[in-house]
Amino acid sequence: MSDMNTANYKNAQILCVGTELLLGDIVNTNAAFLSAQLAELGISVYKHICVGDNPERLSRALRDALSETDLIITSGGLGPTYDDLTKETIAAALGLELELHSPSLDRIKSYFERTGRVMTPNNVKQTMIPHGATVFPNNNGTAPAMAAFGGENNSKTVIMLPGPPNELIPLFHEQVKPFLMSHTDAVIDSVNIHFFGIGESALEEQIKDLMINATNPSIAPYCKSGEVRIRVTAKAETHVKAKEMCDACVETIKQSSVGKFIYGIDTKTLENTLVLALRESGKTFACAESCTGGLIAKRITDISGCSDVFLGGCVTYANSVKQNILGVRAETLASFGAVSEQTALEMAEGVRKQTGADIGVSTTGIAGPSGGTPEKPVGTVFVAISAKDYHKCIKLTLSSMKSREYIREVSASNAMHLALSYLNG
Amino acid sequence: MSDMNTANYKNAQILCVGTELLLGDIVNTNAAFLSAQLAELGISVYKHICVGDNPERLSRALRDALSETDLIITSGGLGPTYDDLTKETIAAALGLELELHSPSLDRIKSYFERTGRVMTPNNVKQTMIPHGATVFPNNNGTAPAMAAFGGENNSKTVIMLPGPPNELIPLFHEQVKPFLMSHTDAVIDSVNIHFFGIGESALEEQIKDLMINATNPSIAPYCKSGEVRIRVTAKAETHVKAKEMCDACVETIKQSSVGKFIYGIDTKTLENTLVLALRESGKTFACAESCTGGLIAKRITDISGCSDVFLGGCVTYANSVKQNILGVRAETLASFGAVSEQTALEMAEGVRKQTGADIGVSTTGIAGPSGGTPEKPVGTVFVAISAKDYHKCIKLTLSSMKSREYIREVSASNAMHLALSYLNG
Repeated sequence: MSDMNTANYKNAQILCVGTELLLGDIVNTNAAFLSAQLAELGISVYKHICVGDNPERLSRALRDALSETDLIITSGGLGPTYDDLTKETIAAALGLELELHSPSLDRIKSYFERTGRVMTPNNVKQTMIPHGATVFPNNNGTAPAMAAFGGENNSKTVIMLPGPPNELIPLFHEQVKPFLMSHTDAVIDSVNIHFFGIGESALEEQIKDLMINATNPSIAPYCKSGEVRIRVTAKAETHVKAKEMCDACVETIKQSSVGKFIYGIDTKTLENTLVLALRESGKTFACAESCTGGLIAKRITDISGCSDVFLGGCVTYANSVKQNILGVRAETLASFGAVSEQTALEMAEGVRKQTGADIGVSTTGIAGPSGGTPEKPVGTVFVAISAKDYHKCIKLTLSSMKSREYIREVSASNAMHLALSYLNG
Repeated sequence: MSDMNTANYKNAQILCVGTELLLGDIVNTNAAFLSAQLAELGISVYKHICVGDNPERLSRALRDALSETDLIITSGGLGPTYDDLTKETIAAALGLELELHSPSLDRIKSYFERTGRVMTPNNVKQTMIPHGATVFPNNNGTAPAMAAFGGENNSKTVIMLPGPPNELIPLFHEQVKPFLMSHTDAVIDSVNIHFFGIGESALEEQIKDLMINATNPSIAPYCKSGEVRIRVTAKAETHVKAKEMCDACVETIKQSSVGKFIYGIDTKTLENTLVLALRESGKTFACAESCTGGLIAKRITDISGCSDVFLGGCVTYANSVKQNILGVRAETLASFGAVSEQTALEMAEGVRKQTGADIGVSTTGIAGPSGGTPEKPVGTVFVAISAKDYHKCIKLTLSSMKSREYIREVSASNAMHLALSYLNG
């Protein structure tokens, strides 16, 4: 039982089971997820191994792994069918008998009742667990996860998780993480700081000394389509202490030269932050998109319940549509072109008035790879905002070496950030 | 040298090197890519292994792998810095000396001249290759790829590829694949058949006998957000023969009961197929989106150069916007609701007239997870099309268990498929 287990995990291996991985039908996102989670817990990952639904090779890989580290986390092979053999193979390798686990059987029965499906006898196989294992009930599927113990002084632990990420991820967060934390010396806390308007290398350059010297809390940057996120992670004896350490580090970064680029702390995404800010200020939003072609609207409407602040948008690819729907003037298009500050401003104002929103934003530019000119190369994008008492346009000159996808993502983000900055005064 | 190598590869292992993989900073897409490619070549993958930039563990993993299979493909660790040790470790394991490879040195020099960067002495390290190796020049980076040979009768081959996918993928397609094909008994050809309107399990059910009995050509289904793709792969002595075998199999599937669900052969995506069909028929397209919130427009405008057929779209989230911009009648909204056949049809007609497009499509529905009612549960979506002489609305009843993302993707696909079906008569 877990309370008999006095292990103190320092390092681990991740062993994924599934022929579909070896055929390249699916990408092994579980290994990356588990690795990142273990790194945060201060547990080093030595190796990933991935084998097919083949008991012999699984058995061999497991023995090798157990000879190197005390903790192995597996994913996959816990299903009800004859080729799901992870649990049986691991139990055999650890010298443990399988026993019926009644709470799991009850759980599986009620799961089938709830979903209106018929339980088949092979589902009973899923409720057999190795002697002495700690069971982690699965709220999103039929296969319970578990930790089995073996080796000298029960020093070896094998945690078995189901393969589907929608089962594995909540199981890890809700049950495996607390289990592992109860078997490590320290608790871990982390805080994410979200930046906009500064690149990863410029940010690193400016707070290099801070980053290099940071071991606990550690400071790690992550970059995605023009946004940078910094994760501050602290390890301490208690959560209170770890949180204090994180907060102090966040405060230092806020006070530094990069502080002005922070748009959120522990927020989800830019669009989430915008929707919350709109809701808080009681304002509504609309967008007119040319080069982003619906991406702003798509990202906003990814958020369930955004309809209280998002009224709608127009994708005005053709000039005639910019005129007919948004009321952009023919003279503006003729004098300055569709990709211009003037057109962007008229688009933002047009969509605001047409929809009756408090804030309108717009994008017009060259997303490439074709369509660039010497005056307006690929990567030239105008992003504008219009409110009752405010309007502004910024010009982006993104590298023409960047992909169409990147240019569109960054342009959409800039439009949303413009609205967020306006709301934040 | 490769011409001395008479190996006939049947199985392989993939060994990825990189601490960033073990930290979970990046997902191992290389392993999935290489696995899928090897499967197509008829080479079975036994195992994936991933280790950090640690020569000892790499060496141990390599020795284990070489004891099991004759072919190992590695990715990563070919960079210029001190911790890039894949090549050195592999040469040592195979008992091969490293030698300067002059063509690679020339190549690297001209690469630096071309990109205007300064070559540093540690780039010379990248031009050292194990004695007797076959070099694969890298057009997208400084690290040449290579195949090194060792073991009894040179029966063991280790192919080393750089880690960045934008280098690894073209290297594989252009050089490694032909190399491997020259060392397998056969050539491989494959054809993709794209289906819409039938689920994976229904499709499998209907052509089960065909699929089970298909060994060469093999028939493999892939599924993604409501679309199914079948890949037919044939192995033969010549390309002509392999192609003939694929074509015959495709013909059989076309003639089967699932033939009517095929929308394309070897096409890229549904949106690509639609843009090509619009261009061919000289027709223009516009979309009015409620629940898909800009996703149709976004997917169409992912395609560079779509502006000749795509005029624009409206994202009409609020009812007032449906009325003001699209001209949906207040009575329609009051009598039938925003999520109804009548509203969908008026939206499609409205966007067609407003933009002057030949074809207008629309979506209105409940993408969830909130907003469902007993009469219109989450997953209820109306998708409509309007042309000058044609209009139609279909009702989707997707499972309310599906994610918001899935419901939106499938709804957008249905709208585009409706337009495609209209164009194809």
